Amino acid sequence: MTDTVDSAVRKFQKELNAGTAALVLLAILERSGDPLYGYQIAKQLEETTSGGVPAKQGTLYPVLRSLEAQGLLSSRVEPSVAGPPRKYYAITPVGAEVLAAWRDAWKHTRDFVDGTLEGGRS
Amino acid sequence: MTDTVDSAVRKFQKELNAGTAALVLLAILERSGDPLYGYQIAKQLEETTSGGVPAKQGTLYPVLRSLEAQGLLSSRVEPSVAGPPRKYYAITPVGAEVLAAWRDAWKHTRDFVDGTLEGGRS
Repeated sequence: MTDTVDSAVRKFQKELNAGTAALVLLAILERSGDPLYGYQIAKQLEETTSGGVPAKQGTLYPVLRSLEAQGLLSSRVEPSVAGPPRKYYAITPVGAEVLAAWRDAWKHTRDFVDGTLEGGRS
Repeated sequence: MTDTVDSAVRKFQKELNAGTAALVLLAILERSGDPLYGYQIAKQLEETTSGGVPAKQGTLYPVLRSLEAQGLLSSRVEPSVAGPPRKYYAITPVGAEVLAAWRDAWKHTRDFVDGTLEGGRS
């Protein structure tokens, strides 16, 4: 793979992730019902994707903090017996409303992109 | 729709578009085979999506220029009988290579996102 291709693929993947990471995390926290902390969210991600995408916990935290700053998640810190305190995140009512709208926007964009890609094969 | 929800949806859509616009334009130019200018590309977009997404020509140009700067498109300007000169864009060999890699990255990310969203409904 040439440098140009490699660099273009990294840029593209980064842009795709920027849009979809927040969607995926909100969906996981809605499904859970219970508040989850970072490690649990990473585990859920791995289970959902059959281990296909190893979630790096370090990449989750900036997204979780951004979602909290927007009022879509709430958090509380609880002491842990075995280590440092854990920060538990839960979806807020506004977060659930946003998730519903994001699901619709995702499906619309996904079908649009798939439509143009399939057009290219016919 | 509250301001928070509205603002979160706009932000999300903008991020999704940033990742997918370049993919869609490369796919259209590969399918075409012939070089196309902005208006033709916008028309192709509308046809592919059955008029569902009215493509704004103004939003295409920054993406086309960025793709050219990355070496994925080439362009040539030709005089037009009826109006200002037209800038025709064509996909380069490197662009075709990048498109193949982007298709794979898109499918992988799409299936990952769909997997987490479907997990939420079961």
